Formats: sequence, C-alpha cells, structure tokens
Amino acid sequence: MSVAKTLDTQLNVFAEFHPKLPPSAVSVPYLFLANIHPSLQWNVLDQVRSPRLVVLDTMNLWIRNNLEEVKRLLRRVDGIIINDQEVRMLTGETNLIRAGRAVLALGPRMVVLKKGEHGALVFHGDEVVPLPAFPLTNVVDPTGAGDSFAGGFMGYLASRGHRLTTGLLRRAVAHGVITSSFCCEDFSLERLKTVTKGEFGARYEAYRRLLRV
Amino acid sequence: MSVAKTLDTQLNVFAEFHPKLPPSAVSVPYLFLANIHPSLQWNVLDQVRSPRLVVLDTMNLWIRNNLEEVKRLLRRVDGIIINDQEVRMLTGETNLIRAGRAVLALGPRMVVLKKGEHGALVFHGDEVVPLPAFPLTNVVDPTGAGDSFAGGFMGYLASRGHRLTTGLLRRAVAHGVITSSFCCEDFSLERLKTVTKGEFGARYEAYRRLLRV
Repeated sequence: MSVAKTLDTQLNVFAEFHPKLPPSAVSVPYLFLANIHPSLQWNVLDQVRSPRLVVLDTMNLWIRNNLEEVKRLLRRVDGIIINDQEVRMLTGETNLIRAGRAVLALGPRMVVLKKGEHGALVFHGDEVVPLPAFPLTNVVDPTGAGDSFAGGFMGYLASRGHRLTTGLLRRAVAHGVITSSFCCEDFSLERLKTVTKGEFGARYEAYRRLLRV
Repeated sequence: MSVAKTLDTQLNVFAEFHPKLPPSAVSVPYLFLANIHPSLQWNVLDQVRSPRLVVLDTMNLWIRNNLEEVKRLLRRVDGIIINDQEVRMLTGETNLIRAGRAVLALGPRMVVLKKGEHGALVFHGDEVVPLPAFPLTNVVDPTGAGDSFAGGFMGYLASRGHRLTTGLLRRAVAHGVITSSFCCEDFSLERLKTVTKGEFGARYEAYRRLLRV
C-alpha cells in the first residue's frame, strides 16, 4: 500500500469549478493550496490578501499536463508538499536528496518530500532533515494520509510559526507524521474523528523518544 | 541504487571453505556472523566459546535454498541484520513492521531491518524504532554499505553493550547508519580508509540534531 497508482482521473464537478472565497477566508495568514488544477490554485492565491505563509500541494496529473503552470506557482509560494513519485516526475532526478534540492531551485524556500511508510525529507536552505514514519502494525487505509499530514503540518505552523526555522519545520513535519499515522489506522476520517489531544500528545512523545540517539 | 538485483552467484573459493578459527578468535565476546552459507555460520558459532552477543547476517540465496538452516540459526543467535527484500522473503509479510515482528517470533531477541536510503527499523521486545538514513547528495557506490553498517553497529555494542536495551540498540543502529553513509561516498573502502574520528563524531552529532523534534 505504499505506492499509489492512478488508473483514471475524472474531474467531475471540479472541471467547471471557479472557487470564490468567502470574506472570512480572504485574510487567512496560513494558506494551504490543496491539490487541484494549478490555475485554480493560482486563482485562489490571488484572492487571499498578503498571506504570511503559502504551501502548495499538487499531483502527477498536473505535473504531466500543466507543468508550466505548476512551475509558475512554485515561484509564488513559500513551500510545497510533494511525494517521492511526483518529485521524480517534476525534476527528473532519481536521488531524492538531489530531487528535493532541485525543487528548491524552482522557487520555494522549503520542500517537504513525503515517502509514505518511509517518512519524509525536509529541505530548507542547505539543510536536509530526514524523519521516519511512525511505525504502524495495522495500516487499514492510507487514503487521506497526505491531506492529514498537510493538516498537521500547517496546523502546527499556524500555531507556532512566527519565524520559519529548520527546527520549526522539523517539528511541523513531526506533527504531520503523527496526524497521518492516526488517519491510516481506520477507513476515511473515522480515526481522526475520535483521536483525543491526549492520544496525540502521547504518540508524539513516543515518537520523540524513538528518535533520541 | 536502492534495490540490489542478484543476477548470478558464484561461490568460488567459498564453495569448499571450512573455516577454522585461530585461537585469538575463539573467545570473542561479540560475534558477527557475516553473510555466507548458514552451515558455515553454524560451524563458526560452534567454535566460539560462550560469546556474549551473536548477530547474524544472511541473504536471499540462503533464504531461498537453505531456509531450514537459516531458521535453525535464528533460534541460536541474539539478533539478525536483514534488509527489506530479504525479510519479506523470509516471512512472507509485505508490511515491514509485521515482517520484523515475525522474525522476532523465529527466535532472536532483536532484529535490525535495513531499508537502504530509507534507513532502518529496530525490533526489540514490543518496541519498534524507525531511524532514517543520513541524507547524502552523492551516493557514489552503495557496495559494502550493509557490511559497514554492521561494523558500526557491532563496534558500538562491543564498546558499550553491557546490557542490551532499546536505547543502546537505537544508538548502535545510529552508529551503523553513520558508518555506512561514509562507505557510500566513494568506491570500495576508500572513504572509510580516510574518515577521521572527528569527522565521524561531527556527522553523528549532526544526525542527532536532525532528529530532535
């Protein structure tokens, strides 16, 4: 379950979607542009008034069919969250360390490279931080793991992100890792609906301890 | 370069090899049974007088052709170092966390599961510790990465291993990770021949810092 294979993509209602943000959303300081056609992401970004931090998500479909639009966006955002397959497609690099650095060269000041069960790599300036996934015996359904990772990551930055340092990014990624680990433990959002702040904190603390070498 | 493909194996001089340990070797406290035919490993183990810790290495060839001998050895050793492909072959489990636990059930009290560029998982009792690889931009040659990993791991245990705890194993694996990272930076043993204690310590410290979340 560690490699996603796209058999077919039907945009359905998103094919003719033209998002218009409600007034409450136009002044958000932390903006996550979830995966959708890059021209729609551009359009949403245009509607938000001077966000403090903008992070992009994308997918193989847009990298293949709308590469220039994805690259144009990369020059306008602070960071991108991207998986191993996508980053190889975007940069043509097989070595993931080189691939992550190649994305930095396209514009953003940070790259979070997700590797599923193998965790993530964070690129920020010259620094590369590898973080493992939280070890799970029962992966019930990885659907939504990427979005819940992004939610944990952005949520942490929004609560603590006064200044973007590598240490802050590292902890934000760790929050993404723990959030997505709960996501995978059941179908859909079932586990995320029941997880308590105490359970989250206990697992985060266990993860910290595991990494103390 | 993260997946090894065996095209052919010629045992050559090892086909008729019957190792006879010199007196200096029969009383080593820390014994690493490097990869060779399991009957030779068994024979070497027989020659060593009450070693304090015995760790096994093996490979796909013996798991395929001499499975019972490998399993017999597993009941007699303290630990095994095994990679992701081999552990799936040995246990039939795809999920690496389940696979590592399945190896524990075969006898040893610790399993170090190597995942190449994705680091390693350590299994000890109920604990599972994930540790990433040290991020390298230039992987020149991964040949010998497994053996140098084992060397760093065993060397650390031999210098500190009074009592086998999960914390000790975690740090031993971290020493294996750093040793093998130097190995990959040049062909053969070239980089390991030049690395200084200071360079090793600096990289270990950098690795520790990277994991502080």
